[in-house]
Amino acid sequence: MIIDKLIKKLQALQAPIVVGLDPRLDQVPAYIKEPHFSDTGKTPKAAAAAIFDFNKGIIDSVWDIVPAVKPQIAMYEQFGPEGIICYQMTVAYAKSKGLIVIGDIKRGDIASTAEAYSNAHLGRTDIAGEPTTIFQTDFITVNPYMGYDSIEPYLSDCKNHEKGLFILVKTSNPSSSQIQDLQAADGRPIYAHVGEMVSQWGEGFIGQSGFSSIGAVVGATHPSQGKELRKMLPHTFFLVPGYGAQGGKAADLSGMLNKDGLGIIVNNSRGITGAYQSQKYKADDKDFAKAARAAALDMKADLEAHL
Amino acid sequence: MIIDKLIKKLQALQAPIVVGLDPRLDQVPAYIKEPHFSDTGKTPKAAAAAIFDFNKGIIDSVWDIVPAVKPQIAMYEQFGPEGIICYQMTVAYAKSKGLIVIGDIKRGDIASTAEAYSNAHLGRTDIAGEPTTIFQTDFITVNPYMGYDSIEPYLSDCKNHEKGLFILVKTSNPSSSQIQDLQAADGRPIYAHVGEMVSQWGEGFIGQSGFSSIGAVVGATHPSQGKELRKMLPHTFFLVPGYGAQGGKAADLSGMLNKDGLGIIVNNSRGITGAYQSQKYKADDKDFAKAARAAALDMKADLEAHL
Repeated sequence: MIIDKLIKKLQALQAPIVVGLDPRLDQVPAYIKEPHFSDTGKTPKAAAAAIFDFNKGIIDSVWDIVPAVKPQIAMYEQFGPEGIICYQMTVAYAKSKGLIVIGDIKRGDIASTAEAYSNAHLGRTDIAGEPTTIFQTDFITVNPYMGYDSIEPYLSDCKNHEKGLFILVKTSNPSSSQIQDLQAADGRPIYAHVGEMVSQWGEGFIGQSGFSSIGAVVGATHPSQGKELRKMLPHTFFLVPGYGAQGGKAADLSGMLNKDGLGIIVNNSRGITGAYQSQKYKADDKDFAKAARAAALDMKADLEAHL
Repeated sequence: MIIDKLIKKLQALQAPIVVGLDPRLDQVPAYIKEPHFSDTGKTPKAAAAAIFDFNKGIIDSVWDIVPAVKPQIAMYEQFGPEGIICYQMTVAYAKSKGLIVIGDIKRGDIASTAEAYSNAHLGRTDIAGEPTTIFQTDFITVNPYMGYDSIEPYLSDCKNHEKGLFILVKTSNPSSSQIQDLQAADGRPIYAHVGEMVSQWGEGFIGQSGFSSIGAVVGATHPSQGKELRKMLPHTFFLVPGYGAQGGKAADLSGMLNKDGLGIIVNNSRGITGAYQSQKYKADDKDFAKAARAAALDMKADLEAHL
């Protein structure tokens, strides 16, 4: 089970941390960007090449201290096909360094369509009988609004290719309350119902760790809901966005752990990749990767102190 | 307002029809595929080139009888960057023929991420000060599970670039009941709450037609819910999937119309693009586009007879 691999790795490193690779161009130092702009102009091709160089620097700097990275596909898709090449290369490069890769794609669609997404991100795409690997991600995030038949195709590929999912349950953004917190007729909020579904869908995927490869996204910004979900869902691992920039604090996360101190992997994107631009680390452009490593180690210490 | 353009076009053609461009390779005739496989092997590049040729044939055959096409991005994304090039070319070609293009992408993410998706699909991507058009779609579909702040960035681009949205409310698939039909504490189902939000979010986008450029996805497979939503949401235009292959019938759609007989655009994908393979039309491979036109005209007659 991929979830066991993830947990083993984060235990060995004592770092329940995933580094979000959501680069914006204005985060990429000029000395990296300018040569590409000189080569091909201010084009998607140049932007994508610059972002890949930047990602490679970050990955080279953190691969031995964190178990996983999470590229956010929107940040690549915004540059069109060239951006998708960069996404593909970033995933492959992270894999080559032994990192577990969580593709933050939040797809969700009817069965036949979900199958196509699953081919691309978890399984293989059949090209006239030729099974072809497109993206090599280990986990992807998916959206549950359309229900089980929109999730099932991913489960097949998780089974056949040892992959996993993180399904949106209670997201970190302020407006997550609008639909996710609506109270159902039984008095429980929608996210609790969705959490229960995620737990059921993941029953066949529970590994030796006691956790399922079918996990949930639960925002760091909602500690009490996170605690409640942990009690309800003892076998569901949580991908936790919202730490740092969005306001989530390490102390808020303790309720999401089980008695063994396990149960979460916490994302940090800009707080790590953009550390060199921050007041705290303000480093020379050329030291962006060093600053990222320092920020990741500081985050590790912060989590250790509070969890 | 883009919604007025869409409605004018469908009134002029008397065809509330959108042709879904969701091609699978096994739908593309061998005489189109084989030369590409000979050129570059059974590769994503060959697959994407074959699908573009096929799409071009369909578009050339229906552009003068339907107002819009709806490419489903998953069917392109499954071939990776080459597939995304094909998506981009398909959108651009359909636009060049005067068609309105609905990108069926069902994205949904927190604000900063939604902004990146919106750049790509509705607005412009800024590349070091250079505003760059990536995809030229007129409308996109989006997922509301994360609430208003995950929708707002799209609204800005809809305002600035005269674009529109169709937000998932009650989808056509069987499992849509699991979350969307959950009863809220006030006795109404979740989809009714979401429908109401969509209507509010679209208030600033109501055109001369009386409809908003911020529309809803409502499946043809749920006629009674569709009727209820029409009453609740007089200004919300519905994109209606599920006609044909999924079991939705023309007679089921009348409740989704307003008193002027307006309010919906009905999608048909395989029923049109795959018509040549069906019992009804069984045409020679070379006549796939002719069969698609015949199927689109039959659908028009079917809708006219029942609406």
